[in-house]
Amino acid sequence: MAPVTTVGEEMHALVERLYPLCRSITGDGVRATLDIVGEYVPLQAHEVPTGTQVLDWTVPQEWNIRDAYIADSAGHRIVDFAASSLHVLGYSVPVSATMPLAELRAHLHTLPDRPSWVPYRTSYYQPEWGFCLAQETLDAMPDGEYEVRIDSTLADGHLTYAEHVVPGQVPDEVIVSCHVCHPSLANDNLAGIAVATFLARALAEQTPYYTYRFLFAPGTIGAITWLARNAERVDRVKHGLVLACAGDRGQLTYKQSRRGDAEIDRVVRHVLAASERPHHVTEFTPYGYDERQFCSPGFNLGVGSLTRTPYAGYPEYHTSADNPDFVSPEAMADTLAVCREAFAVLDRNRRYVNLSPYGEPQLGRRGLYDALGGRSDTKQAQMAMLWVLNLSDGEHSLLDVAERSGLPFDTVAVAADALHGAGLIKA
Amino acid sequence: MAPVTTVGEEMHALVERLYPLCRSITGDGVRATLDIVGEYVPLQAHEVPTGTQVLDWTVPQEWNIRDAYIADSAGHRIVDFAASSLHVLGYSVPVSATMPLAELRAHLHTLPDRPSWVPYRTSYYQPEWGFCLAQETLDAMPDGEYEVRIDSTLADGHLTYAEHVVPGQVPDEVIVSCHVCHPSLANDNLAGIAVATFLARALAEQTPYYTYRFLFAPGTIGAITWLARNAERVDRVKHGLVLACAGDRGQLTYKQSRRGDAEIDRVVRHVLAASERPHHVTEFTPYGYDERQFCSPGFNLGVGSLTRTPYAGYPEYHTSADNPDFVSPEAMADTLAVCREAFAVLDRNRRYVNLSPYGEPQLGRRGLYDALGGRSDTKQAQMAMLWVLNLSDGEHSLLDVAERSGLPFDTVAVAADALHGAGLIKA
Amino acid sequence: MAPVTTVGEEMHALVERLYPLCRSITGDGVRATLDIVGEYVPLQAHEVPTGTQVLDWTVPQEWNIRDAYIADSAGHRIVDFAASSLHVLGYSVPVSATMPLAELRAHLHTLPDRPSWVPYRTSYYQPEWGFCLAQETLDAMPDGEYEVRIDSTLADGHLTYAEHVVPGQVPDEVIVSCHVCHPSLANDNLAGIAVATFLARALAEQTPYYTYRFLFAPGTIGAITWLARNAERVDRVKHGLVLACAGDRGQLTYKQSRRGDAEIDRVVRHVLAASERPHHVTEFTPYGYDERQFCSPGFNLGVGSLTRTPYAGYPEYHTSADNPDFVSPEAMADTLAVCREAFAVLDRNRRYVNLSPYGEPQLGRRGLYDALGGRSDTKQAQMAMLWVLNLSDGEHSLLDVAERSGLPFDTVAVAADALHGAGLIKA
Repeated sequence: MAPVTTVGEEMHALVERLYPLCRSITGDGVRATLDIVGEYVPLQAHEVPTGTQVLDWTVPQEWNIRDAYIADSAGHRIVDFAASSLHVLGYSVPVSATMPLAELRAHLHTLPDRPSWVPYRTSYYQPEWGFCLAQETLDAMPDGEYEVRIDSTLADGHLTYAEHVVPGQVPDEVIVSCHVCHPSLANDNLAGIAVATFLARALAEQTPYYTYRFLFAPGTIGAITWLARNAERVDRVKHGLVLACAGDRGQLTYKQSRRGDAEIDRVVRHVLAASERPHHVTEFTPYGYDERQFCSPGFNLGVGSLTRTPYAGYPEYHTSADNPDFVSPEAMADTLAVCREAFAVLDRNRRYVNLSPYGEPQLGRRGLYDALGGRSDTKQAQMAMLWVLNLSDGEHSLLDVAERSGLPFDTVAVAADALHGAGLIKA
Repeated sequence: MAPVTTVGEEMHALVERLYPLCRSITGDGVRATLDIVGEYVPLQAHEVPTGTQVLDWTVPQEWNIRDAYIADSAGHRIVDFAASSLHVLGYSVPVSATMPLAELRAHLHTLPDRPSWVPYRTSYYQPEWGFCLAQETLDAMPDGEYEVRIDSTLADGHLTYAEHVVPGQVPDEVIVSCHVCHPSLANDNLAGIAVATFLARALAEQTPYYTYRFLFAPGTIGAITWLARNAERVDRVKHGLVLACAGDRGQLTYKQSRRGDAEIDRVVRHVLAASERPHHVTEFTPYGYDERQFCSPGFNLGVGSLTRTPYAGYPEYHTSADNPDFVSPEAMADTLAVCREAFAVLDRNRRYVNLSPYGEPQLGRRGLYDALGGRSDTKQAQMAMLWVLNLSDGEHSLLDVAERSGLPFDTVAVAADALHGAGLIKA
Repeated sequence: MAPVTTVGEEMHALVERLYPLCRSITGDGVRATLDIVGEYVPLQAHEVPTGTQVLDWTVPQEWNIRDAYIADSAGHRIVDFAASSLHVLGYSVPVSATMPLAELRAHLHTLPDRPSWVPYRTSYYQPEWGFCLAQETLDAMPDGEYEVRIDSTLADGHLTYAEHVVPGQVPDEVIVSCHVCHPSLANDNLAGIAVATFLARALAEQTPYYTYRFLFAPGTIGAITWLARNAERVDRVKHGLVLACAGDRGQLTYKQSRRGDAEIDRVVRHVLAASERPHHVTEFTPYGYDERQFCSPGFNLGVGSLTRTPYAGYPEYHTSADNPDFVSPEAMADTLAVCREAFAVLDRNRRYVNLSPYGEPQLGRRGLYDALGGRSDTKQAQMAMLWVLNLSDGEHSLLDVAERSGLPFDTVAVAADALHGAGLIKA
């Protein structure tokens, strides 16, 4: 096997490591996941006790599972949790019984249209037990008695989530959130975890302008718990991105925040368009991942969601076919690259005020103007300066300047730095 | 003849009953019309004396006519008011004379391009007499002396209009207005009267949210009179619809209010689009029917106009060809159906406030969430609840929710009812 | 030669008279230019001393030139300022020397891609000397010694600009600006001067509503000087137009003000569209002519720019090929006509308030309504009155009325005059 060399391969290796763990909205699978992520970036873990009131919700009992199977009368395990964490209905109550197939059927979940795939099912808030299996497996099960056993516990415990913070120059925050509650599903949680992890590492290499807060939490109840515990300081969150389905081979899809014109929306749209990648931009809908919570009307944060093929948009979604083969190093690297490009724009996107707003300032005597004209890169730099000066009225950001002028954001930002250095504009 | 069974046929029968009457902006023809309408829905009639100042206008003298004809030298009636109320220039002063054709011609109105049709002409505010006749009739009249007689009176009297009110849960009003001043013209006044009448009957079957006020009044001076006499309470009028040309076989046309984005505009546009009927939506113009008065800049009410082929948009307009055959039961029934659909939306179009706006409320423990997912109608109902919760910030109406979500208005309204019942939103 | 008869021919004759003069941002060439323009319209000249601080800039030394040439060893003048003012680098410092071609080359400017054309180059704010010549001329120059001589002076003096004012009924101003700093370039300055001159003459034939101020000034430093000296009264400038490249055979291009929706923007767009001329409308950019200064963020005036082919948009730009043959009488006449049409709209574009806003006023008793209907021009006039009445709520201008109604601006303005005369609207 070739050595792991690219960041895409590193992320894929992380996906493969995390894949076998049985995650859920609580329990040791989440803790084991966070322990592994913590080897890449330091994490602060939080344990929130069962019964804690979080917004309109209550932290549920903690679920843990050690073993589960269906065995035939010969004691042969036909369905075995040890083979895949998907085989057990998430949050199954314990069971230990023998029953005929006819009775067992009510507890079995299959995908008749995809007979070789195992579906992913949960029952978080209604006590229930069940197994998920391939239709083929079910078809091959003769009538007769079966032993069913789920060695799980539902007991008071904790809900676990973790944060990683990259400190910035200002306390204003950008949150990056991914869910860590799905068991053996690669695209629909592990790829997002991997991209978030390596994005955090990349941001830590410099001191960014914003403080970037990464949130690794179970879906829905985890985001709600975080919001409940951070209600006093949530107004620090100026921008955010929910990462999910980050590794399949489809085009990137940016789902805008509820506000639709939040700065993160404009930045990601700009970066995707400027990069000339094929991509989709969609309106906000109150369905999908934790943007549902961040964009609930009381918070209404500027949080969008970046995926490749979106939520529930591919046949492998929530099935055993969403395995490590379904995600590629290249796709994860591409998702990571767009995140980095977007944050590079977001982080430098200031609103300046022209301190010499009456007429153009004389750039020439400040050494900012090419006397006899000439080279095209100099020309573009000068145009960028004129645009920044003209639009720096406190209302236009550098992104506005880039979009109005058609110049690359980077050229505009460099021009702004030069003008700022010459004392012609102030932030 | 088959029994009258459908509402379209009932409306057409009303058109046929009203057709022979000689209506004008005042006089007994209007009273007779309102008497007949009053057999269908109770009306409150108003009589406003000649000379009453109404806004910038003055109620004119009342015009009544008993007989009118042109007879040839043999005493044969060539043009006879008894055959059609169109034959007399509306508001003709009386005349009784004998004169040569050459002199008579100045008082004769024809349609040379439609030689068999009789035009409709009036001269309300300038004393004048005249006859309208087919060009063919005129062409067949030999030179010579003719007896002309118009047995009309112009005298102090009253302007007549009537109202029908369907009381609602709130005093805020929706007005539905139609003109009752055209003589024997079926599409251009009688079809609108018929649709308004049966719309009033349909609304009375329940207690609507809004109070619906139906106005049967002569065009222009009638609407102006109503506005003048209701100036103190016109701010109760929140929405309105002027009905005209409601029975021809053309597509429906909705002419927006002067405001263009009034709630009635959005509602009718939505209903027409959602119904997938071919239709037109046009901008407001200060011409046409009484939307001119309701949408004058001082009132600027949210009143649109619903027609089939619009004002002056068909060759039969203001001619004897606009007779009962020109309007169909099916077209009138279709116009009525759209009015009912539009008012069904308007009447339920509330703005709610989410009482649990921080994160999503837990629908499951309130029995509003299908635990294991599943049926598509349940799914749509849940999506509608999530949309209503997400957009109920006091700024978005249920129509906004329907349009943003792409869900049927009815599904959204049912979801809002469920959430309201659970105490999660308030109006 | 045929007598000068059309205004286009008159303008072209002015271009030809001005063509040989060596203009720059200061100096006697500007004064001679303004003297000639002053024969057409009275000008008030302003002389601003060297060293005067104007906004962020300082008025430079005055440059004058008497002679300049490159002569070969035989004393033959190979490049001669007497033949074209373009041959000397604008603002060249004096030089008198003999040097080998190898050393001279660093001071020679050519257009290798257009070997027969002479480029136009300047070095205003860096002391430099140089010659501009055809590449063909350079190619024919043998190695050897050359005599170079530029008999110029750079000395304290003045910057010169001039104004012409057409007094209006109100002190609110429209400025029309053109640059007068380019030497022998016909489209890129002389055509604009000619159109401005004849536009001023045309406006002076009546007393317009606005006061029209024509500014003949050197580019950049001239506009900046004018703005600096008029800072206290610049808020009188409500609208403006920068004229340049006014004579080439390309389509008209209107470059919008920085505000994009200034009244001048709407007016010129309307006039160009209504005229059905092929044309372009472009967004503001902080590059081009003196709209850069008028539209700097501190002033942000409603000043657009009208050109034919825009700034730097044609190969002849800033070369000897931009000569009087490059501009045509017809094109200049067309530019002038559009300016006159635009100002005819701008000058009459009032916002009125309907004094009878509740319902329609009764036009008939005021003699404003055709009793029996009829002719199409009467019909259009009546429609225009209804539109003006309906939209005269203090928010809509007559241009808004024209655009909403689709009626010609002139018809709308005439209707407004009639309604104003009848006391139905006030300004």
